[in-house]
Amino acid sequence: MSSRPPQTLDPATLRARLDRARAASAAAGTDALLIAPGSDLRYLIGEAGGSLERLTALVLPAGDEAPALVVPKLEAPGYAHVPAGELGVEVVTWVDGEDPYRMVADRLGKPRRVAVSDNTAARHVLPFRAALGDAEQTLAGPIVRELRMRKDAAEIEALRRAGAAIDRVHARMGEWLRPGRTEAEVADDITAAIVAEGHTHADFVIVGSGPNGASPHHDVSGRVIERGDIVVIDIGGPLPDGYNSDSTRTYAVGEPRDADVAETYAVLERAQRAAVAAVRPGVGAQDVDAAAREPITEAGFGEFFIHRTGHGIGLDVHEEPYIVGGNDLPLEPGMAFSVEPGIYLPGRWGARIEDIVVVTEDGVEALNTRPHELVVLES
Amino acid sequence: MSSRPPQTLDPATLRARLDRARAASAAAGTDALLIAPGSDLRYLIGEAGGSLERLTALVLPAGDEAPALVVPKLEAPGYAHVPAGELGVEVVTWVDGEDPYRMVADRLGKPRRVAVSDNTAARHVLPFRAALGDAEQTLAGPIVRELRMRKDAAEIEALRRAGAAIDRVHARMGEWLRPGRTEAEVADDITAAIVAEGHTHADFVIVGSGPNGASPHHDVSGRVIERGDIVVIDIGGPLPDGYNSDSTRTYAVGEPRDADVAETYAVLERAQRAAVAAVRPGVGAQDVDAAAREPITEAGFGEFFIHRTGHGIGLDVHEEPYIVGGNDLPLEPGMAFSVEPGIYLPGRWGARIEDIVVVTEDGVEALNTRPHELVVLES
Repeated sequence: MSSRPPQTLDPATLRARLDRARAASAAAGTDALLIAPGSDLRYLIGEAGGSLERLTALVLPAGDEAPALVVPKLEAPGYAHVPAGELGVEVVTWVDGEDPYRMVADRLGKPRRVAVSDNTAARHVLPFRAALGDAEQTLAGPIVRELRMRKDAAEIEALRRAGAAIDRVHARMGEWLRPGRTEAEVADDITAAIVAEGHTHADFVIVGSGPNGASPHHDVSGRVIERGDIVVIDIGGPLPDGYNSDSTRTYAVGEPRDADVAETYAVLERAQRAAVAAVRPGVGAQDVDAAAREPITEAGFGEFFIHRTGHGIGLDVHEEPYIVGGNDLPLEPGMAFSVEPGIYLPGRWGARIEDIVVVTEDGVEALNTRPHELVVLES
Repeated sequence: MSSRPPQTLDPATLRARLDRARAASAAAGTDALLIAPGSDLRYLIGEAGGSLERLTALVLPAGDEAPALVVPKLEAPGYAHVPAGELGVEVVTWVDGEDPYRMVADRLGKPRRVAVSDNTAARHVLPFRAALGDAEQTLAGPIVRELRMRKDAAEIEALRRAGAAIDRVHARMGEWLRPGRTEAEVADDITAAIVAEGHTHADFVIVGSGPNGASPHHDVSGRVIERGDIVVIDIGGPLPDGYNSDSTRTYAVGEPRDADVAETYAVLERAQRAAVAAVRPGVGAQDVDAAAREPITEAGFGEFFIHRTGHGIGLDVHEEPYIVGGNDLPLEPGMAFSVEPGIYLPGRWGARIEDIVVVTEDGVEALNTRPHELVVLES
């Protein structure tokens, strides 16, 4: 659990989410959802939980039976702020020596199909399967993610706050990103600033300098940053309410060493702008990907844009909808995702621009507002 | 992945661990282990990985077939420092559109039993089951934890460093723990100090003041700390090498309000000392638990010591061996665990003293060395 006081959500909001999840289960022919600690649980009852070894699960039948939160007795105080009574959720505690999987099975009777949340650990998945031997075991992800990807106004406001917080970190980059320092040293300073700006922790801090910037999944290294380097900084984490920030900007440490930087970076800027401009209700997720890809391909860099254009964001940093070729999901108001094209020149340098955007009734709102141009830091 | 440069482990150490894991699998009648990102993976190949959505798995056959690290092509650079060649591990990359579960199944032929690591997410457990339909699916935990709970000299040294780091945080508690501040404010300062002392992040920060201290799983709250409060502070997190700290001390903010504090706390000190003194090779884990419980029960507080005495620690904060009644596991040199009895007086106050200790050839070494007595902070 986070090291902050719990953020209590309006019971009516949670109750509506539980009702929608039950209805979606029924529609999918699933008799019950078993939701492990994590962001699905936080979405449904307002608390993510934190049990590692012992079983905690929200048991949510598709029908009229009462939902139950099955939780180790010792860990029950961590759920004290969950408005269980108002949600109609029965809190069922268990102690070492009892078989919580059996307790769940007994509550469910003879279900035909039971779905476990996608993040449920094998140490719980396998005992559930044994205890519910006659039921088909499936994944709850497809059911829950349909709900979670359509954000309500309070969720969007939470993402706005997260965007503003990470923007304030980017605004200070010149204090830390200097020649002679290692990527890891810079990352430590960024990590502290991410926490200082109100995040519970830094979930990821990518400092990709020079050739390391050409590897989009590079993390940080002991490489010493040199004058003239291009540096990709991709950072984010959750605020105490669970909603995440995620923003990338690309910096030059002094005047860029490579002569092709300005022209190539201009292509990337156009691509990111075009993709954001393509976002509105009814447009397919894949069309936003295509809008980012087109200017890059046209300029001859298509083979150097080696990842999808974006991912949904909310209580998880990566969630639906994915902005990727082949995903014909029509965008709807309330969907929030990253738009983050990149160009990666192997062994030389890379660049990426990433904003979180949200689909509005008639277009798009960007939740990150730092300038997009290559920021040349004094060095 | 962490925001630090990878810590490269000696390939000979990793190779020996892989060999031991294969031998243990064979002895357990298991044809292969499938190890997901996490501390089991870090233990075996020196990198924990970080994939959330796409499958990454170490495929470790019990027989002579080559192990493979199956990893999404885009994430492969994150494993570049793994000495795969020296370990005899083939790196097999896959891209979106391919079926990585089928790739794993094809490598394994017709196994009878395949074990997945305990933390493998359901989103991978279920597709593995489908792809390996004829094989029994079991948990790898019982096999891997036998290895991991016996630490080598380098691991113990890592735990020593972690212990010293968290001790330095406790030493500064008087700077932050003051009347008029909320638990959450104190926790924020502690979190920053945990990072400043070299941890990658604060994994848990419990600040249980006054009545909140009587709930051992209390985290933090908006409660304002008052003069005279007893406060339980239980904190820790991983260093960049992955090994964790975890230490609890109990503080008084000025002179304790309650008249029974000194006498009750003295019982707890005796109990913690007796439990540590009981640790040596050959003694059962449950005997250490009993040694902690006896003085507390004798003083009439037995019903207020409501949890086990300790848990193993290493790459995970909670791992084998558990120091708990019913666990007759004989302790062996190299086992490392917490000794953390507590007394919790509902609605009033609580106290806990926690050190990490390691079993030596002929006794015990405590890795936390802050004084055990109730620290009365000026207020």
